[in-house]
Amino acid sequence: MKMQDVARAAHVGVGTVSRVLNNTGYVSEETRRKVEKAIEELHYTPNELARNLYHKKTQTIAVIVPEISNPFYAWVVDTMEKRLRWKGYRVLLCNTIDEQTNEALYLQMLQRNMVDGVLTMTHTLDNSLYASLKGPVVSIDTPQFSEEIPVVSADHAQGGCAAAELLLNSGCKHIFQFCDNIDEAFPYFARHDEFAKTVEAAGVSCGRYFAKWNQFSVQYFLSEANQFFDEHPEADGIFGTDMWAAACLRVAQERGLHVPEDLKIVSYDGTYLAKLSYPRLTVIQQPVEQIVETSVDLLVRRIEGEKFQNLRINVPIQVIRGATTL
Amino acid sequence: MKMQDVARAAHVGVGTVSRVLNNTGYVSEETRRKVEKAIEELHYTPNELARNLYHKKTQTIAVIVPEISNPFYAWVVDTMEKRLRWKGYRVLLCNTIDEQTNEALYLQMLQRNMVDGVLTMTHTLDNSLYASLKGPVVSIDTPQFSEEIPVVSADHAQGGCAAAELLLNSGCKHIFQFCDNIDEAFPYFARHDEFAKTVEAAGVSCGRYFAKWNQFSVQYFLSEANQFFDEHPEADGIFGTDMWAAACLRVAQERGLHVPEDLKIVSYDGTYLAKLSYPRLTVIQQPVEQIVETSVDLLVRRIEGEKFQNLRINVPIQVIRGATTL
Repeated sequence: MKMQDVARAAHVGVGTVSRVLNNTGYVSEETRRKVEKAIEELHYTPNELARNLYHKKTQTIAVIVPEISNPFYAWVVDTMEKRLRWKGYRVLLCNTIDEQTNEALYLQMLQRNMVDGVLTMTHTLDNSLYASLKGPVVSIDTPQFSEEIPVVSADHAQGGCAAAELLLNSGCKHIFQFCDNIDEAFPYFARHDEFAKTVEAAGVSCGRYFAKWNQFSVQYFLSEANQFFDEHPEADGIFGTDMWAAACLRVAQERGLHVPEDLKIVSYDGTYLAKLSYPRLTVIQQPVEQIVETSVDLLVRRIEGEKFQNLRINVPIQVIRGATTL
Repeated sequence: MKMQDVARAAHVGVGTVSRVLNNTGYVSEETRRKVEKAIEELHYTPNELARNLYHKKTQTIAVIVPEISNPFYAWVVDTMEKRLRWKGYRVLLCNTIDEQTNEALYLQMLQRNMVDGVLTMTHTLDNSLYASLKGPVVSIDTPQFSEEIPVVSADHAQGGCAAAELLLNSGCKHIFQFCDNIDEAFPYFARHDEFAKTVEAAGVSCGRYFAKWNQFSVQYFLSEANQFFDEHPEADGIFGTDMWAAACLRVAQERGLHVPEDLKIVSYDGTYLAKLSYPRLTVIQQPVEQIVETSVDLLVRRIEGEKFQNLRINVPIQVIRGATTL
C-alpha cells in the first residue's frame, strides 16, 4: 500500500495526498474529504519513518535516569511520561547505572535526529558529554553543563534547612545525615550543606555518612544502615532519602530501638516508600509534579526554537509531618 | 554535512560510503579504511532516520505497562531496559493508566514501522486491539490475545498454593485475599483461584476483598486497608501484592495489632517495598529476571523471523520467608 494508491483512489495527485497527510500547503475542503475517505477505505497507514524524515521530527524525547526501579526516579519518569504524552511526545527511556557509554549513545541520538530532545537526571560525572551538545536539552538536579542547558531542581537548600529544624525541634543531640553525593556542582549538594550549617549553628554535632556512588540495591542500603548503627550507637537523629530512611527505620526496629522515642528520622523525597512505612516517616517532599511540568515545558519551548541563557529554577519543597519526629 | 562530502573526501562513490555505513555489499579493506578515515575527519554522523527508512528497522521496542511508578512495574521496566539494551534495542515507554486510546496509538506504531516490536503488560480489557495486530508482540501476564502472541507469566497457581500453605501452617483461621483482577482470562487469576482452593480444602474460610480496577495510588491502598479492617476485625491471615501487604501491615500496626502474633501476612511480588518493611514480609517472589529474559528473547527471535504458535510459558516462583508468618 503506497501513497500512489491513495492518490489513484481519490483521483488526485500524490502531492495532494502528501499535503493532506502532513497538513501543509493549501488543499480544498472537498479534496481533503476525498483523500481522507480513500485513506480510510484503503486502510492506508503512512510510513512514519518517511514522515519523520520529511519533517525532521520524531516527537520522541530521550529520558535519562540513573535507575528506573529506584522509587524516586520511577516517580519522575512516570510523571514525565504522562506530561510528555499530553504534549504529544513519546518517551525513550535510558538507565545509566550500568555504563556511561550507553548515555553517550543516547546523546548521539539527539545529534542524529533520532530524538527531538533530552531530559536528563544523569549522575555521571563527565560533563563534557553535555557541554558540547547541540540541540534541546533540559536537565534536572544536575550541574549546569553549559549556559544553554536549563537546570530545574527542588529548592534543596530550603529542604536541608527544614529537615535540620525538624530534628533540632525534636530535641536531637547526635544528628547524622546520609550524603548521596559529595560533588558541590550538583544542586542537591545544597541540601547537605544547609542541613549541616543549620544543625551546627544550634551547637549540635552533625556527622556525615557517605554513600557509595551508583549503588541503588536494597541489600546495599540495609547493609550500610547496619554498619552505621554499629559505628554510631549514639545517633538519635537521622536525615536521608526515602531509601536511607526506610532502611534505617527497619534496622533500628530490628535492633529494638523505638522510633521516635530513641531515634528521630526525617526522610527526603516523599515516594510511596515513605508513605507506607510504620511509623509514618516525616518527609521533606520533593515537588516532582512541578519539577516535571517546568522541565517538560522548557524543553518543548526549546524544541520550538526559544533559547535560554543561564536558566536555573528552584521549586519550593513541602514539609509533611509524620510520626518519626516530635 | 552529507554523504557526498564523505565520498568526495575519500575519493570514492556515494554508493561505496553507503555500503560501508550500512555494512552491506562488498567493499575492499583498503577502501573501507579510507571511508572510515573520512567519516572521522569530517565528524560525519549519518541521519538515523534515513538509515532506518532504508533498513526498515528502528532498534526500538515499545514497552506498555499500566503505571511505571508502581514498584512491580518499575522493577520490570528497569530489567527490560537493561536486557533490551544488551540486545541492541532501545525502550519506548508507555503508561496505560490514563487512557486506553493511548495504548492503541502505540500499537499503531508497530504497524507504521516506528518500533520493531511490542512488550505488553496491559491490563485493559479490549483484547481486539491485540488480536488483529500484525508484527512481533510478546505479552506478560496478559490473556492470550491470539495464537501468534506468546504469553510469559510467573507460575501463579504455584504461588497461590504456596501462599495458602504459609498461612495455614501459621495457624490462621480467618483468611482473606486481596484480588486485583477478577477476569479469568488473566494468568494471575490462577493465583486467587489456587489460593482459595487450598485454604478451603483445609476447612478454613477464605474471604475475598476486591480491588477497584486501575487504582495504584498509595492513598487508595491505605483507605481500602482501613475499610477492610473495619469490616473484618476477625481477619488473622492476609494475602495480597506488596502494595496491599505493606498498606495492611501499616494500618494493622496503627490499630495496635501485633504482626505476626495477631495477624499473619504473605506478600506477592517481592519488590523492595516488601524487603524494606518491618517486620520483614514473607514473600512469594515473582521471577522478574527470568520473565524478562524469556520474553525479550522470544521477542527478538520473533523480530528475526521465527514464528510461535500457542506458546505459554510459566516461570516458577520462589518463597522467601520473612517475619510476618510463623
